[in-house]
Amino acid sequence: MPRKRKLEIDLGDRSVPIRIGWRTLGEVGPEIARRTGASDAAIVTVRSVGRRYGADLLRSLRSAGIRAHRFEVPDGDATKNLREVERLYRAFLSRGIDRKSVVVALGGGMVGDLAGFVAATYLRGVPFVQIPTTLLSMVDASVGGKVGVNLPEGKNLVGAFYQPSLVWLDGALLESLSPRLVAAGMAEVIKAAAIRDAKFFARLERDLPRLLALEPAALLPVLERSCAIKADVVSRDERESGLRRILNFGHTLGHAVEKARRYRGVLHGEAVAMGMVYAARRSEELGLASAGTSCRLEELICRAELPTELPNLSRKVYLDALRVDKKRVGQKIGYVVLREIGKSDVVELTPAEILPSSFGRRKGR
Amino acid sequence: MPRKRKLEIDLGDRSVPIRIGWRTLGEVGPEIARRTGASDAAIVTVRSVGRRYGADLLRSLRSAGIRAHRFEVPDGDATKNLREVERLYRAFLSRGIDRKSVVVALGGGMVGDLAGFVAATYLRGVPFVQIPTTLLSMVDASVGGKVGVNLPEGKNLVGAFYQPSLVWLDGALLESLSPRLVAAGMAEVIKAAAIRDAKFFARLERDLPRLLALEPAALLPVLERSCAIKADVVSRDERESGLRRILNFGHTLGHAVEKARRYRGVLHGEAVAMGMVYAARRSEELGLASAGTSCRLEELICRAELPTELPNLSRKVYLDALRVDKKRVGQKIGYVVLREIGKSDVVELTPAEILPSSFGRRKGR
Repeated sequence: MPRKRKLEIDLGDRSVPIRIGWRTLGEVGPEIARRTGASDAAIVTVRSVGRRYGADLLRSLRSAGIRAHRFEVPDGDATKNLREVERLYRAFLSRGIDRKSVVVALGGGMVGDLAGFVAATYLRGVPFVQIPTTLLSMVDASVGGKVGVNLPEGKNLVGAFYQPSLVWLDGALLESLSPRLVAAGMAEVIKAAAIRDAKFFARLERDLPRLLALEPAALLPVLERSCAIKADVVSRDERESGLRRILNFGHTLGHAVEKARRYRGVLHGEAVAMGMVYAARRSEELGLASAGTSCRLEELICRAELPTELPNLSRKVYLDALRVDKKRVGQKIGYVVLREIGKSDVVELTPAEILPSSFGRRKGR
Repeated sequence: MPRKRKLEIDLGDRSVPIRIGWRTLGEVGPEIARRTGASDAAIVTVRSVGRRYGADLLRSLRSAGIRAHRFEVPDGDATKNLREVERLYRAFLSRGIDRKSVVVALGGGMVGDLAGFVAATYLRGVPFVQIPTTLLSMVDASVGGKVGVNLPEGKNLVGAFYQPSLVWLDGALLESLSPRLVAAGMAEVIKAAAIRDAKFFARLERDLPRLLALEPAALLPVLERSCAIKADVVSRDERESGLRRILNFGHTLGHAVEKARRYRGVLHGEAVAMGMVYAARRSEELGLASAGTSCRLEELICRAELPTELPNLSRKVYLDALRVDKKRVGQKIGYVVLREIGKSDVVELTPAEILPSSFGRRKGR
């Protein structure tokens, strides 16, 4: 069995511990007790995940003297909304969840974002622990402290920066994922390498088959490095005023696709994969990236069986997304470009520069 | 004209500037521009306040090159809820409010709490300025960074700690208040003195008539001292884990009254006044306060024409309030008691200790 790995996100006055291991869910209870001193835990999860892992988690919490309460939310990003937030507030109240309680998010990014936002705002904030169960949420959503929900107008338009007391990564939880979901998570791993670490990118090129097969010896160091890259960026810029924006590589137009599809049929990682390939190509076209960069990125994404082309939606869909994107500052859009593999930058571009006039379907169809 | 007064709430890595003056609304625009660099301002206000002061504020913002957008919310604490929060999010989006914008709360505590919570969570947080227009919000709500909204189950059960970039107190805005509203605000001034500063309490006893008449020379130093007391407590305990709880003096049962009245007919300051007198008497009865403390407090509250008796509601109303109170920790309630004038403490008491069995109407009526 591979050794356990520890990582700390250093945020000045605070530090967020990340624990990475294999088949470690049974050990999380005592660690939560030690970190939060909670008497009660409000476990937020979706039905399928709760069925699979809920009993182990409850047992582990009880072994540490924590009373556990389970709260189910409907699956799917479409229900990451204010209605669910309010329902959880009121369910928490009715079960006596108070400031001595901890909110435990057991699930994918949607559960972490939603439960995290509730934790950040219920009684003006209660402690919060992330137990991500998808690759995407392990390497991305559970690191960085971004929590929030969607509005009909767009993704994550409401939220907060709220750091968990503990992030618990048990790689074995990924065994129940479909290959498609593993691949979608790999998109954010590839992103982390592409924007920040050429050597790590080369490692992914080498180990991809073993990673997609979830071999622990290959997987755990990759989980660690992905989290470390994100943690490093976040710790330098917790509030997303500068550097952190590079983490949005591929996301601006990816969001447009997710929104046009109403968050159905396309996974976040898939949308990001398309957005990254587009952004890399556009970076080259604008003379911002070195030649060959986009092809190399595209090849790895393709090998991971991720889509590489943005769908031919109407031009307006993409333009509208730029307009309500929360990264918008004034007229120009802070768009993340790739300079080369392992190096990225935020460049202020006009919508027309991001989307050349040939891009997207015209109204007449 | 009295001199302008400056105060800083020191929170370690951040500092919240409070500016106190008389007829200074016309000067706020350039200060907001300097503090936030905002291109746009989302002014959140209620109709009556917007009519009276909106034009002056807009002019001042425009003089500083800031585009101003006005958003009206319905008056009254009953509409400080999640529905209004969502309405504001979506109205902000439709008017293009982004991260380069500042949210300006122009109004009483309800407007500040609501607009502040929206500012804290819209796009994961945008800058926020408080321009309180009631005495209550000048000395209490706008200092300390607590923002939030009510749930049907109780007051302020949802919220965040979010510090404004600027708090602007223009004492002349109080001239349009009814005597009843001035008195209600005075309740929190008296609270600040009672829990923390015996000398200040004596000053209030001396100056009360001039304060109720809003004489600037008497009023401005009292605004400053009230804010300073709260700022001092908050800066020692921003997250309300210890000392800060003394600011809840009179609030626990006050909330019960507000809730039973559905936030209508009784002003927050009035409810707090009743709660303070009750808490002071109970402190003496429990042997926690020196003799005479409650009478002296009651006299000042009475002279301010504030109510001194909790209404004879059913016992269950008061007990229920203790149960969902967000200050609840486990079985006991952290209840703020007065030791003497100028000195308070949080004591863990059972509901039965806070409410002796003789208190409140029985079911049979």
